[in-house]
Amino acid sequence: MAASVDLNADLGESFGAWKLGDDEAMLDLVTSANVACGFHAGDPALLLRTCREAAARGVRIGAQVSYRDLAGFGRRFIDVTPEDLTADVIYQIGALQGIARAAGTTVTYVKPHGALYNTIVGHREQAAAVAAAVAAVDVALPVLGLSGSAFFEEAGVRGLRTVSEAFADRAYRPDGTLVSRREPGAVLHDAAEIAERVVGMVTAGQVTAADGSVIPVAVESVCVHGDSPGAVQIATAVRERLSAEGLMLSAFT
Amino acid sequence: MAASVDLNADLGESFGAWKLGDDEAMLDLVTSANVACGFHAGDPALLLRTCREAAARGVRIGAQVSYRDLAGFGRRFIDVTPEDLTADVIYQIGALQGIARAAGTTVTYVKPHGALYNTIVGHREQAAAVAAAVAAVDVALPVLGLSGSAFFEEAGVRGLRTVSEAFADRAYRPDGTLVSRREPGAVLHDAAEIAERVVGMVTAGQVTAADGSVIPVAVESVCVHGDSPGAVQIATAVRERLSAEGLMLSAFT
Amino acid sequence: MAASVDLNADLGESFGAWKLGDDEAMLDLVTSANVACGFHAGDPALLLRTCREAAARGVRIGAQVSYRDLAGFGRRFIDVTPEDLTADVIYQIGALQGIARAAGTTVTYVKPHGALYNTIVGHREQAAAVAAAVAAVDVALPVLGLSGSAFFEEAGVRGLRTVSEAFADRAYRPDGTLVSRREPGAVLHDAAEIAERVVGMVTAGQVTAADGSVIPVAVESVCVHGDSPGAVQIATAVRERLSAEGLMLSAFT
Amino acid sequence: MAASVDLNADLGESFGAWKLGDDEAMLDLVTSANVACGFHAGDPALLLRTCREAAARGVRIGAQVSYRDLAGFGRRFIDVTPEDLTADVIYQIGALQGIARAAGTTVTYVKPHGALYNTIVGHREQAAAVAAAVAAVDVALPVLGLSGSAFFEEAGVRGLRTVSEAFADRAYRPDGTLVSRREPGAVLHDAAEIAERVVGMVTAGQVTAADGSVIPVAVESVCVHGDSPGAVQIATAVRERLSAEGLMLSAFT
Repeated sequence: MAASVDLNADLGESFGAWKLGDDEAMLDLVTSANVACGFHAGDPALLLRTCREAAARGVRIGAQVSYRDLAGFGRRFIDVTPEDLTADVIYQIGALQGIARAAGTTVTYVKPHGALYNTIVGHREQAAAVAAAVAAVDVALPVLGLSGSAFFEEAGVRGLRTVSEAFADRAYRPDGTLVSRREPGAVLHDAAEIAERVVGMVTAGQVTAADGSVIPVAVESVCVHGDSPGAVQIATAVRERLSAEGLMLSAFT
Repeated sequence: MAASVDLNADLGESFGAWKLGDDEAMLDLVTSANVACGFHAGDPALLLRTCREAAARGVRIGAQVSYRDLAGFGRRFIDVTPEDLTADVIYQIGALQGIARAAGTTVTYVKPHGALYNTIVGHREQAAAVAAAVAAVDVALPVLGLSGSAFFEEAGVRGLRTVSEAFADRAYRPDGTLVSRREPGAVLHDAAEIAERVVGMVTAGQVTAADGSVIPVAVESVCVHGDSPGAVQIATAVRERLSAEGLMLSAFT
Repeated sequence: MAASVDLNADLGESFGAWKLGDDEAMLDLVTSANVACGFHAGDPALLLRTCREAAARGVRIGAQVSYRDLAGFGRRFIDVTPEDLTADVIYQIGALQGIARAAGTTVTYVKPHGALYNTIVGHREQAAAVAAAVAAVDVALPVLGLSGSAFFEEAGVRGLRTVSEAFADRAYRPDGTLVSRREPGAVLHDAAEIAERVVGMVTAGQVTAADGSVIPVAVESVCVHGDSPGAVQIATAVRERLSAEGLMLSAFT
Repeated sequence: MAASVDLNADLGESFGAWKLGDDEAMLDLVTSANVACGFHAGDPALLLRTCREAAARGVRIGAQVSYRDLAGFGRRFIDVTPEDLTADVIYQIGALQGIARAAGTTVTYVKPHGALYNTIVGHREQAAAVAAAVAAVDVALPVLGLSGSAFFEEAGVRGLRTVSEAFADRAYRPDGTLVSRREPGAVLHDAAEIAERVVGMVTAGQVTAADGSVIPVAVESVCVHGDSPGAVQIATAVRERLSAEGLMLSAFT
C-alpha cells in the first residue's frame, strides 16, 4: 500500500478576460498543478501569476501541453504531423519554463491536455512525437499520464520517467480506459462517493468499472478537475479522506 | 576603431505555409540571428529548423520578441499594459529557449521586433516592461537595440548589458533616429552604397543623415534585413566590404 | 420628453469553453443586443445561438465590431491602418450578417467595442475607417455611439444614421466623456441609484457628472453592461424604473 | 461534349505580411475564384482587394471555407463537432459576403478548402454540417466539389446545386479519388501534359488514372492551383488548349 500519493489538477486555464476555475482555492488543495501553456488556454500574465502562487505554496508545476486550439480548448483531435507536434510541444514547455523561472520556480513534469492526452493513449505517431519533445527539452522531466498507453511506451523508450495517474471523478471501462464524456455517467459528482473511490484506488490499487467489475488501476497521482462545478468541494473531500486513511499527500517530483 | 563587428538579421519569420526571406542564405552571412518567437511570426517547427541551422553554422541566436500580432506582423503599436507585456516577453523568450535547447544550442540575447522596437525607444512604461522581462528570465542576457533609447536606460538600471546596433539600409534623421518607412527614401537599396555606409559607421562611428549632416552612431552590431528584395546581395556586399577593411565579423556574445 | 427608449447590452462575448455574462437573462431585459463578431469574443456557434435567442424574443441585433484582439478582449488600442481597419470591420459585420441570416433574422445596426469605441471618439482616421466600413456594407445600417464623437461626424458625412447612447452605470466627466475605468468611481454599482440616474438621463436629458455639475446627455439608447456582477439585477431595476415613469422600452430600429 | 467549362483556382491565400501565389495573374486566367475566408488564410484587407480585382475582371467569387487553422493552412483534419463546423462555415460565408458587397460584387458559390474538402468526401457528419451551413445562409448558393462525395449527397438532400470539378494537375486513383500528396507522382508539373489531360477530361469525360486505366470523370469546372510553382504557366496552357479545342471558358454561375 502506498504511504503517499500526489494530487494533481489542471490550472491556469483562464484566458484574458475569461476566467475558468478557482485556481487559488485549488492551489491550496493539490500537490501538483498542471499549468496550461497558452495553446488551449492560459495567457502569459495569468500563467505568471499562477506559477507565483504555486511557488508560494510549494505546489509543483507541470507543463500542460496541448494542440494549438484556443477556440476548441484543446478538446478536438487535430491531425498534426509528428514534426509539427514535436515542435509545438517543445515550444510550450519552453514557454512555461521561462514563465516559471521568472516566478522563481521550475517546471518539474509534463502532462498532455484534452484531446492530445486521449489521442496518444493509442496514436503511436503522435505519442512518439510528444515523448520526443519532452526528451529533447530535458530527459529528466517525468511525464504524467495513463499507464499502459502508447505515450508511456514511447516515453519509456526515450528514458523518461512515467508517472501513472487515476481520475477521481471519471467512470472507467472494464479495460481501464475512461468512459467518454459523451456517454451518460462518464463524470461522477458526489464528493463523498468520489473520495471513497479514490481511497480504494490508492490503498487497494483497484476501482469499480462502469459494468460493476473491479479492475486494477495504477496510481502515483490522482487527478481532480479544477473547473467543474463542485471542484473545490470534491478536492477537499478527497484530500480529507486520504488524510483520514493516514496517507500523506506529496508531489511525485 | 573597432577591430570586429557583429552582423545581425531577423530570421525565422515564416509561418506555416507562408515563407518569408531566405533564411538559409542569410545564416551563411550573419553572425547573429534574431529569431522570431511566434507572436509576430515563426511557427515552432520552423523555429526549430532555424535554430538547428544557426547552431550548425555557429551563428548566435537572439529572441526576437514582439507584440502578439500575427495579422499585423508585429508592426502595429498595441497599448498593452506593462504587466501583460512583461509576461508576453517572458513567455516568448522561454519558448525560444526551449526550442534552442532542443536544437542543441542556447538563446544568447534579446531583440525587440517591429513596433515594439520603435515604441520602446521613447515609451517609458513599455520599455521598463520589456527590460523587466529579460531580467526576470536571465539577467545575463544582453539586449540588442538603439543607443540612447528608454529601453537601454531601463535595461541598464536592471543590470542588463546593452548592445548598440546601426541599420545598414535605413536613412537616419539628424537626431539619430530612423526615417519612418512611410516617408520616401527611408530604405536604401543600392548594395555598394549600403556597404560603403556601413564601413563608415563601423570605422568612423558616424553616418550621413537624410539632411546631409554627419552624425555619430554607436555600432557594436550592424542590422541587415533578411526579407527585403536583394537582402542576400546586400548582406554579402556588407560582409565583403567589411572584410576588405580588415574588420573581423564576430558575434557580440 | 422621450416617450420610449432603447436598452442595449453587449452580448455573445463568451468564447469556446469560456463563458462571460448571462446572455439569456439579459436577452429578456434589453431591446437591442450588441453581439460580438469574433474579433474580441464570440465563437461562431455561440453567436448563432445568441442570434437565435435574440430573434425568438424580438430583440434587435447589432454588430459589435472590434480590433482583432482575443487576448486583450478588444480593450487595447491598436494602431491599425485605416485600410486594414475598414476591411476588418466589413469582415465582422458580414460574418454576423451571415450568422443572423442563418438564425432567421438580420443585423440592424453597428456598435464599436471597447478600445475601438473609445479611440474613435477622437481619432479621426480610425473614426473615418469605421464609418466607411459600415457605409460600404449597407448605408442603411445605423451606428450606435457617443454624441459629438469624431465617429458620429464621419458617419454623418457618409449618410449613416447616428444613434446616441448613454451609459447607465458609468461616471461622466464634466465634458460629457466617461471617467476612465482606471480611476476610482468610474463604475456605479448600486442598482437603485443607477435606475434613478437613467430616468434623469432619459426624461430630462441630463446627468450629474463626477464633479457634481449637471450636464446634458443625448439618449436614444441606454447601455447596460451584461458581464459585470449584478448586471441582470441592474438591468432589471432600470427597466422597471423606466416603466414606472411611463416610458416605453423599444428598439431604435 | 461540353461547349463550355469553368476554370477555378484558390486565391486570396496571403495573410498580412505573408504573400502566397500571384493572384493578379491568376485572375486574368480563371473564370471562378475560390477566395479564402480568413480561417486558413486571407486577412480582410487582402480579401477586399481580391474581390475588387475579381469584380473588375468579371471573375465569379466563391467562398473557400476551411477549418479554423491558420498555423496549418487548413490542411489538417480537425475533429470539430457538427454544430461548431456549421457555425464556422456560416461565419466564413457571411464574412466574405460582406467583403464582396463592399467590393460591389457578390459571393456566388461555396467551395471547401484543404483538409475539410478531403474529409467531407467521406465523413458523413461533417459533410452534412457543411451542407447545412450553406443551405442556412442561402439555398441558392451552389457548392463546388467532388462528384460522388458524401458532401454532394448531403448538399443535394438540402436542395443545393452541386457543381463537379476535376483537378488539372493531380493524379487520380482508379476509383476516381485523388492520389495523396504524400505519395510520389501525386502532382503533375508539365504544363503541356496537364493541358492535354484537361482537354480529355472536358471533351471525353475521362482521365487516365495512376495505374493506367481510363476512368470517367465529371467536369463542370477545372481546378488549377494558384500557388504552385508554374501555376500561371499551367493555367495559361490549359486555357489556350481549351480555346484551341473550341471550348468556351465561362463561369458556372
